[in-house]
Amino acid sequence: MIVPSREDLGSGRTLTRDRLADGREILYFDDGGDAGDRAMAGLHDIRDLPRTTTSSEMRRDPLTGEWVAYAAHRQNRTFMPPPDADPLAATVPGRPGTEIPTPDYDVVVFENRFPSFSLRIAEEERLNEPVDGRPLLPRRPARGRCEVVCFTSDPHGSFKDLPVRRVRTVIDVWAHRTAELAAIDGVEHVFPFENRGEEIGVTLQHPHGQIYSYPFVPPRAAAIAARAREHRAATFRDLFEDLLTAELEIGTRVVDTTGHFAVLVPAAARWPMEIMVLPRRAVGSFPELSTAERDDLARLLPRVHQAVDRFFEGVERTPYIAAWNQRPTPAGYRGLGRLHLQLFSLMRSPGRMKYLAGSESGMGAWISDTTPEAIAARFREVW
Amino acid sequence: MIVPSREDLGSGRTLTRDRLADGREILYFDDGGDAGDRAMAGLHDIRDLPRTTTSSEMRRDPLTGEWVAYAAHRQNRTFMPPPDADPLAATVPGRPGTEIPTPDYDVVVFENRFPSFSLRIAEEERLNEPVDGRPLLPRRPARGRCEVVCFTSDPHGSFKDLPVRRVRTVIDVWAHRTAELAAIDGVEHVFPFENRGEEIGVTLQHPHGQIYSYPFVPPRAAAIAARAREHRAATFRDLFEDLLTAELEIGTRVVDTTGHFAVLVPAAARWPMEIMVLPRRAVGSFPELSTAERDDLARLLPRVHQAVDRFFEGVERTPYIAAWNQRPTPAGYRGLGRLHLQLFSLMRSPGRMKYLAGSESGMGAWISDTTPEAIAARFREVW
Repeated sequence: MIVPSREDLGSGRTLTRDRLADGREILYFDDGGDAGDRAMAGLHDIRDLPRTTTSSEMRRDPLTGEWVAYAAHRQNRTFMPPPDADPLAATVPGRPGTEIPTPDYDVVVFENRFPSFSLRIAEEERLNEPVDGRPLLPRRPARGRCEVVCFTSDPHGSFKDLPVRRVRTVIDVWAHRTAELAAIDGVEHVFPFENRGEEIGVTLQHPHGQIYSYPFVPPRAAAIAARAREHRAATFRDLFEDLLTAELEIGTRVVDTTGHFAVLVPAAARWPMEIMVLPRRAVGSFPELSTAERDDLARLLPRVHQAVDRFFEGVERTPYIAAWNQRPTPAGYRGLGRLHLQLFSLMRSPGRMKYLAGSESGMGAWISDTTPEAIAARFREVW
Repeated sequence: MIVPSREDLGSGRTLTRDRLADGREILYFDDGGDAGDRAMAGLHDIRDLPRTTTSSEMRRDPLTGEWVAYAAHRQNRTFMPPPDADPLAATVPGRPGTEIPTPDYDVVVFENRFPSFSLRIAEEERLNEPVDGRPLLPRRPARGRCEVVCFTSDPHGSFKDLPVRRVRTVIDVWAHRTAELAAIDGVEHVFPFENRGEEIGVTLQHPHGQIYSYPFVPPRAAAIAARAREHRAATFRDLFEDLLTAELEIGTRVVDTTGHFAVLVPAAARWPMEIMVLPRRAVGSFPELSTAERDDLARLLPRVHQAVDRFFEGVERTPYIAAWNQRPTPAGYRGLGRLHLQLFSLMRSPGRMKYLAGSESGMGAWISDTTPEAIAARFREVW
């Protein structure tokens, strides 16, 4: 039996590491109360789970140059389980075990059982060969790690209702995981995000975030880096710095500012609801945030999420995607990206969604039915 | 009153041009039977429609470099009208007029009443200034034309059920419209497409296609041109030619071939169902297709659409996006793109859709639950 190990994270928080029955890693981050002790005193995972490998591969589209990942094993992933089979619930002694074998938890991170990117890939050697041996069709194993972040043991909870102390723990978790995942050989980008709402295909009701680590620089991060590089070449200046300065001067799209962060609607927002949280200092990723910045962000984030749930009149749980953009991890990207939250919804109005049809899905060209200024005005109303 | 004008398109087909009550252009393309005469004998649009202007503008995202179009006037567009208010039905004398004032039609094209891109933009001068006067936030009027293509007067019809002669007319229509729209000052890309299915947000039940003309090169076409340029620089060869040769040699993903076209599943397909139709000759856009190629394609296309509706067992009307990719119109793009149909569905299995959540919508990185080879195998089964 593996003995759990414990680390002190500072600020009173500890991390306890263990393994699930099939060998996947599980990490308990506690808020500094007694949950850490609860985790230590907790049960180990005694389920009969087979060790699995995945078929994760990725191919570079010969026409667009973009990598597409294939994870056929995900077809069988858990889909809308009944409340008594919630895999993210704490385990109640005497009842069937969940993915989290302890009787309670503050924040738990574990490796996704149905990952898009994986370090347990069958026939990994073969996947290093191009498709059918053709150099025109590059293929690679989709090596990376996909983690689930459970930030509350309450199946009906929500990020917006977390106490500031818990949000502060989650920020430390994002920083911890970013540093550790970025160190995996081949990982080029770490992406913490949360999908919320059946309307966007969420398959588990229990609120949770995820962290993907990509073995390539995904298109949005690549585009941002390319623009930042162009801007630096043309002006010797930082793109995000200049953009933030301009937006704060203009003010029209600014929703709020704190000592360390700005909340604004991007001037070229593409979604019916979209808001950005941006550090005022040139910070590339979570690990670079100072203690003061983390404290500030922990107070700010629930307010952003609360405003999101007031945005559409009559909608109490706005479906959303909360996407934490970080700069790519390879050293060549230093200075070519700033940490920021892009939080957006595909909801256009209560009961009506924006669909990504011909122009968006086919050509990648977004058409919006609203304006960034209208979104910002609405956010200021409900702030 | 404007007198309709009539043009001979060859192959027995004629085009009759007229104007709708609010000044929008309407074009009747006939199959060569008596519909042309019907159109000529038809009623003019006598509805009381105000001439409208749009607020269409576009902004270049300072972070990604991509243009996003804003069309706030589209919020009020027609949404799922009842059968007796079908705006794409032929007009029945004595009943309220539709968008199509004649008693019958073969193929009708008219300017969208709620266009994303428009040539009737209010305050166009102002929109040539960057947002808030900041060079970092480029803005332009979203000048272009969005057209609706009605390919059957049957509100319950479907592209797959069109007779070959009608499909042949539609191909001529795509060629005619591509040539004419490409000639509009500033238009850089012409995109014929069809969205089908409420599942992807179609707002009118009556089957119809659309044609967008973009005043910029949209991301997919730009990515393809960049890859084609790279390939030519590295090999002195044509990317599509080499890709097609490779796919035909490998065969695994080829569904069918005809004298002039290949039907295959892309080696890096990103959707749960995706199929491509590609001319064997280096043809950049519809107007370049020969008569023999058009005849061949007219016989092939209904078969492709029929297979799409057999793809998912128990689903008779697969929701899909049929996206006709053409090379960008500026001369600098010559040879950097080949005409092809990318026909795909967001349906994963009956009743379950693929949602574009964190990875796709946030980072632009696609994860697929299937493989291109499995899609191709299924297509060969139902071909």
